[in-house]
Amino acid sequence: MTTPIPQAPVPQARFITLEGGEGAGKSTVIAALRDALETAGEDVVCTREPGGTPLAEEIRGLLLDPQHEAAAPEAELLLMFAARAQHVRRTILPALQRGAWVICDRFTDSSYAYQGGGRGLDAAFIAELERRVVGIVPVLTLLLDIDVREGRVRTNTRDLWPDRIEREQEDFFARARGVFLMRAQAEPDRFRVIDASRPREQVAADAVAHLLALRESSR
Amino acid sequence: MTTPIPQAPVPQARFITLEGGEGAGKSTVIAALRDALETAGEDVVCTREPGGTPLAEEIRGLLLDPQHEAAAPEAELLLMFAARAQHVRRTILPALQRGAWVICDRFTDSSYAYQGGGRGLDAAFIAELERRVVGIVPVLTLLLDIDVREGRVRTNTRDLWPDRIEREQEDFFARARGVFLMRAQAEPDRFRVIDASRPREQVAADAVAHLLALRESSR
Repeated sequence: MTTPIPQAPVPQARFITLEGGEGAGKSTVIAALRDALETAGEDVVCTREPGGTPLAEEIRGLLLDPQHEAAAPEAELLLMFAARAQHVRRTILPALQRGAWVICDRFTDSSYAYQGGGRGLDAAFIAELERRVVGIVPVLTLLLDIDVREGRVRTNTRDLWPDRIEREQEDFFARARGVFLMRAQAEPDRFRVIDASRPREQVAADAVAHLLALRESSR
Repeated sequence: MTTPIPQAPVPQARFITLEGGEGAGKSTVIAALRDALETAGEDVVCTREPGGTPLAEEIRGLLLDPQHEAAAPEAELLLMFAARAQHVRRTILPALQRGAWVICDRFTDSSYAYQGGGRGLDAAFIAELERRVVGIVPVLTLLLDIDVREGRVRTNTRDLWPDRIEREQEDFFARARGVFLMRAQAEPDRFRVIDASRPREQVAADAVAHLLALRESSR
């Protein structure tokens, strides 16, 4: 009855994630990636975390809307992974199984960065959750890297109502950025680090080039 | 920054939980336990799972209200433990620390029974979650044991709108009951098994007797 536990999350050939701090320009990049794949005749699903299914979007509301009681760090971590478990099973795997590309705005790397680096929770526990309830890893992760203060200046001019995580202090985001860069260094085959301090069009062009190179190499 | 992980959950002297199947009469018993302690001049907090804080009650709604998208088993398990992590930190530990008794309608044993036994998730993973995010265990657990079919007959005459877990099939509840009884046998110092097929007053009287015996022995 018990599902066997894989030793490590399994890479998925058409699963692409975007990671990075606030104000790094993820939305522009996602639109460009979608355009590039659709122009090439591919089926594309764009989704986001936390979220991506009706239940996971409700969990997102509990996590990010400052009107709710603030979650303790451990509760925040488990809510993130509950939403992810649902998202993987109901949205991501079904799309990959029918041959679509899936582009996801944030995924497990964000839990290592924000709940691990930011909140100080044990990375070994996060890895256990990843192994137990996620089980997959993207083949390509585009890390849009930007200086924390610069990113926040961009966000502050845009967001009149920052969500609960956007309201955190600068050192929280600095720790998260450190974890992202460390993970990119540890997994150079999966990660591409893109300097997101440049104009958005250049950032998007780099991202598209990395994706098309991957598509070419896997044909 | 990382919190050290205890090797095993720590027993809490004034923390009492009730467990058992549907229709076992937990509400009557909880009212009787509260009366008995208040009559003895004690401060008592009665609470329930999933729930017990504003955020945890919202998680309860996501889990139990059949209007929401059904959670995958892994998502259900993590939502239960997210609610529990919050409940322990915001409600249970503060009450215990000021010297109150805490009586909780369901706790971690229910996750072993319903998500472990019922849904077939790995008990070793549940134990890891208990160790990592709960960290406490009641000193006394009253298991109101009743035949699954008999309990359901009692519930069906009461509930016009059964929640998502109450809608499960008989074998689901039979597996859960098996886990409860196995746990009671493995931890005889913590558990008292009460035959809940008898009239409610007798069930409640047994429960009160166990609680007062515990209180007497710990003075």
